[in-house]
Amino acid sequence: MNTLLDPLAVSMPDVQSGPDMRGISIQRVGVRGVRYPLRLAADANPSRQVVADWEMTVALSAADKGTHMSRFIEVLESWRETPLSAEGFCRMARAVYERLGVESADVSARFPYFLEKAAPVSGLRSLMDYQVVWTARAARGAPARFSQHVRVPVTSLCPCSKAISDYGAHNQRSHVLVRLEYGSPVAADLDALIRGVETRASAELWGLLKREDEKFVTERAYENPKFVEDLVRDVAVLVRRLPGVASYEVEAENFESIHNHSAYAIVISANAQ
Amino acid sequence: MNTLLDPLAVSMPDVQSGPDMRGISIQRVGVRGVRYPLRLAADANPSRQVVADWEMTVALSAADKGTHMSRFIEVLESWRETPLSAEGFCRMARAVYERLGVESADVSARFPYFLEKAAPVSGLRSLMDYQVVWTARAARGAPARFSQHVRVPVTSLCPCSKAISDYGAHNQRSHVLVRLEYGSPVAADLDALIRGVETRASAELWGLLKREDEKFVTERAYENPKFVEDLVRDVAVLVRRLPGVASYEVEAENFESIHNHSAYAIVISANAQ
Amino acid sequence: MNTLLDPLAVSMPDVQSGPDMRGISIQRVGVRGVRYPLRLAADANPSRQVVADWEMTVALSAADKGTHMSRFIEVLESWRETPLSAEGFCRMARAVYERLGVESADVSARFPYFLEKAAPVSGLRSLMDYQVVWTARAARGAPARFSQHVRVPVTSLCPCSKAISDYGAHNQRSHVLVRLEYGSPVAADLDALIRGVETRASAELWGLLKREDEKFVTERAYENPKFVEDLVRDVAVLVRRLPGVASYEVEAENFESIHNHSAYAIVISANAQ
Amino acid sequence: MNTLLDPLAVSMPDVQSGPDMRGISIQRVGVRGVRYPLRLAADANPSRQVVADWEMTVALSAADKGTHMSRFIEVLESWRETPLSAEGFCRMARAVYERLGVESADVSARFPYFLEKAAPVSGLRSLMDYQVVWTARAARGAPARFSQHVRVPVTSLCPCSKAISDYGAHNQRSHVLVRLEYGSPVAADLDALIRGVETRASAELWGLLKREDEKFVTERAYENPKFVEDLVRDVAVLVRRLPGVASYEVEAENFESIHNHSAYAIVISANAQ
Repeated sequence: MNTLLDPLAVSMPDVQSGPDMRGISIQRVGVRGVRYPLRLAADANPSRQVVADWEMTVALSAADKGTHMSRFIEVLESWRETPLSAEGFCRMARAVYERLGVESADVSARFPYFLEKAAPVSGLRSLMDYQVVWTARAARGAPARFSQHVRVPVTSLCPCSKAISDYGAHNQRSHVLVRLEYGSPVAADLDALIRGVETRASAELWGLLKREDEKFVTERAYENPKFVEDLVRDVAVLVRRLPGVASYEVEAENFESIHNHSAYAIVISANAQ
Repeated sequence: MNTLLDPLAVSMPDVQSGPDMRGISIQRVGVRGVRYPLRLAADANPSRQVVADWEMTVALSAADKGTHMSRFIEVLESWRETPLSAEGFCRMARAVYERLGVESADVSARFPYFLEKAAPVSGLRSLMDYQVVWTARAARGAPARFSQHVRVPVTSLCPCSKAISDYGAHNQRSHVLVRLEYGSPVAADLDALIRGVETRASAELWGLLKREDEKFVTERAYENPKFVEDLVRDVAVLVRRLPGVASYEVEAENFESIHNHSAYAIVISANAQ
Repeated sequence: MNTLLDPLAVSMPDVQSGPDMRGISIQRVGVRGVRYPLRLAADANPSRQVVADWEMTVALSAADKGTHMSRFIEVLESWRETPLSAEGFCRMARAVYERLGVESADVSARFPYFLEKAAPVSGLRSLMDYQVVWTARAARGAPARFSQHVRVPVTSLCPCSKAISDYGAHNQRSHVLVRLEYGSPVAADLDALIRGVETRASAELWGLLKREDEKFVTERAYENPKFVEDLVRDVAVLVRRLPGVASYEVEAENFESIHNHSAYAIVISANAQ
Repeated sequence: MNTLLDPLAVSMPDVQSGPDMRGISIQRVGVRGVRYPLRLAADANPSRQVVADWEMTVALSAADKGTHMSRFIEVLESWRETPLSAEGFCRMARAVYERLGVESADVSARFPYFLEKAAPVSGLRSLMDYQVVWTARAARGAPARFSQHVRVPVTSLCPCSKAISDYGAHNQRSHVLVRLEYGSPVAADLDALIRGVETRASAELWGLLKREDEKFVTERAYENPKFVEDLVRDVAVLVRRLPGVASYEVEAENFESIHNHSAYAIVISANAQ
């Protein structure tokens, strides 16, 4: 807040504004767990207005005592009607460091995302939901760093179970989590990423399947068994050649139908942080 | 699915359609944990399109073997562009029992909800988020029963701590949960309910507060201490005289700032189920 | 607290002790979300000391202003070394109303529970975990009412998918939740209940399976397909004839491997509350 | 499994044992979400036997197709009766890479932990619960790296609110999360770490407080206001001089009593990974 324009600044102590003597800089300080609407730029998407869970922080030098928490919400409020692409999201992170009067800011938003899909045989249309996290790290005098994290639920069918059993094979829902950092936010293509990941699983999921679709999906998974190791490797092969990807992490967690725990694997690109 | 129009119905066994011999009726069977968009009818609301978590079920008589899970999603899909009020939500529950060819259906949707509020002194505007659950129980030949469940976060300040301490008083965030069943969905007024509950707390919450607002809120809570017992009683006094309320439950949970557990209370009206 | 023995009671206002004028009785008020150790009486169980999440409440008449929250923790503390069976748990609920000086008390504890199981072919032993909730409702002059809620994870394999597919069948982890109220806590046999539920699923789960066991489990599930409707009915048939069961609820939730949502069903006995 | 000793290895295909052609090494693959008992070595602790949530993984070279998931559970099972200190936990991680026949293994366990505390005035004793994560990263030919992550719930009281208000000050429950990596597991002292963190907050929490204790705690917090920035800096000053600490991260999250979101800060030592 500009104290020249704020009459209360004269009479009310501004406890956060003094210097700090402990010599410890704070990497990130701000607000977390803020639920606020997020309007997505892509008009075609059936969930173009969603509610996101936001974390907004700035770096604080060792000399500064504190930040001004209310200004984060002011930025959220002033951007709330603006449809955001990945680039717009990075501009919003720049608005944070400007409003806070500091050198750098991080903004992240977790939100549900939908694709409209046609069932594989009946062609009936329905929505499938994914969990997405966008993060922008912006600093004065440098391009913002944008990363996109998406959780894609799929079917995995166990190759070992299929090979050793006279009939059947255990299968289950799995979560594939991909975190991509891009050289530029322009490159981020969320729909293509999700579609690509789904093709690497034993089978993809749909919201609505009729019996003829269920037959297709069951047989497709059985023809296409994958260990959790196969899943992360096949997705890594996919994402490392996507345009604009600077680094990646690929995780898979299989909620095993024969155990009460998960099988889990992670591949991290050499240059990931 | 109309089997006359479905060529696959001839050749594919319809395993769910046979009779069942165990003599056990199923109160509710269907889908749960379905994320799908919900469009709210009130155009002025800043979150009029949200993502809801749906549960949709039907009753199954002892003679029927199973239900048709895909039809629930067909109803969701066909209603997804329709802005819904409480009345529309009840009509949607009727569409479920029609589509499923059964006698009754229950639909519930959990979703985030926002009110735009002005800070108490600065007047700055921001959104405050609440968690809402709508439930409609519809049966042929009877009016649908609609209930509304809302979680309102507030401040509670401890009267005991204030009375015994030379200065200060412990206070904390609390959740007030109100579940109202209405004689008719027409009576349900969500905004008025939330506003009413907020006035019964030690202080209400805002997304954005400047220093002059923080002073106001701090002093207001100190002037207005409430035990968890006071909170549920004062909200019960409020809701039992709201128009159209047939029964109610009021819960409060204080996330005590001096303990690692909560103080909790619940009041249930005599006629609540 | 006996005020005769408490020197501070003279000088410190006891804000909770006054009368209340709103005319609203509170069904339950107390503490929630308390983590405290629970020692199970059955010495043979590999998890006989666990950490439980406790809720402890009392009823408050319309004339009483408030309860004394610290006394709930005093009861927990004084019972913490006592190994508890279902009967002991009911005695503890009686100790709550005695210590609080009221007419009735409810105590519930949610805790992890283990059975040691031998894999079906290799015979290798490992632990399998379940989630249990015990609830005791005790009132002066009446026997305590004890209920036991257990979540048993199992495999379900879809009969429809098996019938219509040339090979394979989708299957997944499912949760069967059984809530039993007993005429007397003496009748509660948790191990037998879990074992019984597991036999009603397409297949049971184990912590440790070697390849020969995995073959067995895969084939067993394929030979034994069950809809979510079958699962709740078969478990209902089981539990309604268990000794001492006064009422029951049986739920099943299948985390469908071909969808991103669950299939769900619930059966409630006629006399359940 | 040594195939020479395993008669089934001859007749059943071992699908995981083949070579892999994709050229992608997997940083970590194994099991996650395994609930299994953990026995703590410190006999004096009131929760010396707890249930932990385990993740156990190994690194997989680009040439290896898969790991053997059942062996992780075999290690858990064989170590389940062994009381574990930080050093023992590192030995267990070594047992994992030995049993799996690989070069390195990571083991982590999340578990509840208790300290017995005396209330500040009444001296009444009760347990206070904390959330702990132990992680051991072990590789052949190098000392294991042990890290300890603890979440300490405390009270924070806002200095700004105190300074600007005529009376009162908003306060709330906060979580301080400290993650320490040690040069050697011998140095890890969990009780001292928790006790130290608690002294840096506005006030510490207790399970059981009588009125005279509540007065003490209320006044103590009011005399000792801290911003979230102060909290992370004061804890960082503490932990960076603890014996044996190689690197640290300190986070604090205040569940603001005047907002429906949190204030958050993190300090990361220069050499943290």
